[in-house]
Amino acid sequence: MKDMNETRIPTFDDVLAAHERIKPHINRTPVLKSEYLNGLTGADLYFKCENFQEPGAFKVRGASNAVFGLDDEQAAKGVATHSSGNHALCLSYAAGRRGIPCNVVMPRTAPEAKKDAVRRYGGVITECEPSTSSREATFAEVQARTGGEFVHPYNDPRVIAGQATCSLELIDQIDGLEAVIAPIGGGGMISGTCLTLSNKAPGMEIYAAEPEQADDAYRSFKAGHIIADDAPVTIADGLKVPLKENTWHFVSNYVTDILTASEEEIIDAMKITWKYLRIVMEPSCAVPLATIIKNPDTFRGKRVGVIVTGGNVDLDKLPWIK
Amino acid sequence: MKDMNETRIPTFDDVLAAHERIKPHINRTPVLKSEYLNGLTGADLYFKCENFQEPGAFKVRGASNAVFGLDDEQAAKGVATHSSGNHALCLSYAAGRRGIPCNVVMPRTAPEAKKDAVRRYGGVITECEPSTSSREATFAEVQARTGGEFVHPYNDPRVIAGQATCSLELIDQIDGLEAVIAPIGGGGMISGTCLTLSNKAPGMEIYAAEPEQADDAYRSFKAGHIIADDAPVTIADGLKVPLKENTWHFVSNYVTDILTASEEEIIDAMKITWKYLRIVMEPSCAVPLATIIKNPDTFRGKRVGVIVTGGNVDLDKLPWIK
Repeated sequence: MKDMNETRIPTFDDVLAAHERIKPHINRTPVLKSEYLNGLTGADLYFKCENFQEPGAFKVRGASNAVFGLDDEQAAKGVATHSSGNHALCLSYAAGRRGIPCNVVMPRTAPEAKKDAVRRYGGVITECEPSTSSREATFAEVQARTGGEFVHPYNDPRVIAGQATCSLELIDQIDGLEAVIAPIGGGGMISGTCLTLSNKAPGMEIYAAEPEQADDAYRSFKAGHIIADDAPVTIADGLKVPLKENTWHFVSNYVTDILTASEEEIIDAMKITWKYLRIVMEPSCAVPLATIIKNPDTFRGKRVGVIVTGGNVDLDKLPWIK
Repeated sequence: MKDMNETRIPTFDDVLAAHERIKPHINRTPVLKSEYLNGLTGADLYFKCENFQEPGAFKVRGASNAVFGLDDEQAAKGVATHSSGNHALCLSYAAGRRGIPCNVVMPRTAPEAKKDAVRRYGGVITECEPSTSSREATFAEVQARTGGEFVHPYNDPRVIAGQATCSLELIDQIDGLEAVIAPIGGGGMISGTCLTLSNKAPGMEIYAAEPEQADDAYRSFKAGHIIADDAPVTIADGLKVPLKENTWHFVSNYVTDILTASEEEIIDAMKITWKYLRIVMEPSCAVPLATIIKNPDTFRGKRVGVIVTGGNVDLDKLPWIK
């Protein structure tokens, strides 16, 4: 499953190329603010709403960059990935827009709502058991059979360059930001943020926010090498995956700090965001605000960009309703 | 309680003045779209998200226009109104920004969450019994005691001119709209929409959307005179009030048609908007989409502006979760 695309660190030129390439296929998402949340935190918060992408997540940026960057010969064979979440959805969406095949390996235990969305966008699902060995074996079989180009959910340089366009928009939309904070799982969004800001705004602080119960990036950051957890349990289901070599490069070189929050703090921050910003967003997106509330001295008085990563939530089952 | 401000039809010059006056105090709200909802309806829908106003509703436009239009002598005595909902909240918010008193008469049965928000913004609540006679007697006492300027929730020309700035923004943000649709209760938003569009885009169709179970505007429109219901019961709690003379002027002269939807259709439209547009909005705001889904021939192929009026929802009690 190793792909030569996985082993290259993307450059800022890749970001500029991605920005032009994906413009027709993504939304330039709005930035929202709330006097109430500013009062609560003492900071000036600017929420970049990637939940307003058509398929509901920032991952449409990296997925579109990969899909629309393929030459026609590669494109005819389509793309392939393994994911139980937003990357599967967004890759299917991007492939659908280009009219090429998309094969996705998903654990049979993945939520039906997410499988339905993959199918709605034209993706073909092959189910595997919910284990790493089954996923890798099944994916190898699917890729061999279809010849689809492997687009890794976050370690792929095309994906990182695509995600990097989010903060490129943000600093164009909001002047004078002093810090940006985003959730961290595998590190695709944070890596893209580092890539853009280290080039366009080198003084800006970059914070990653992580659930305490899936704090492998935090521990990696403190230890100075990648620590991967086996099966972390957290409500922030988008943040369970470990760092890989390309994302570790950015995290270890450019991130200011990694902050963590408990499950209860995440749910509280999620509910107050829904209430005062009036947006539907996933638990993962609430981790940054939870850490801002928890670390007021770090953010007080600063203009802070907060990246809201996605909004694909099961509306029948909200964590604050028992 | 009659106020001379109530008896004047506002003009488009009033709208332009309101636009300048309230600019520093409101958000120019973003317009969102969804390929999924467009596919579902066959129309090109542009959602103007007034739920993203700081106090959560378009009513901050009219309230700010009234509050910031007062001369200093009037302003010193503050403003007063009766409302159990978003007008109370938004008038308190606007008065708080100007630093003047705001007295609100609210039924003792109004939701605690809304009372809390009024107080957070600095409004002073006097409770009444949930009846028209108690409300009017209590309000007369409060107004006599405080001398506060009465700002009617929707019949006040300053309020209508303020609400009219919403569609002024919308037609600046989206080119080539062929129709606009908004919910109708007392008719403040629809009247403002009529006022702006009849001046700036006279060919554009204007639809009002109303719950079947509170269809007094629909019946008034068909009958040619105001019909007021006593106590309609609908989940769209913002839409229970009747038309008055100023809003009837606009509705009877400029509205293309009034469309209605059942409670079930409203709840369904609310849930799919939360799911696919990923915004938190009130049941009232779902009535337009519900009527668009129900009347596909009226909207198919058209570019339609949909005004999302507010987002103050009790997140612990969503209508699709039993």
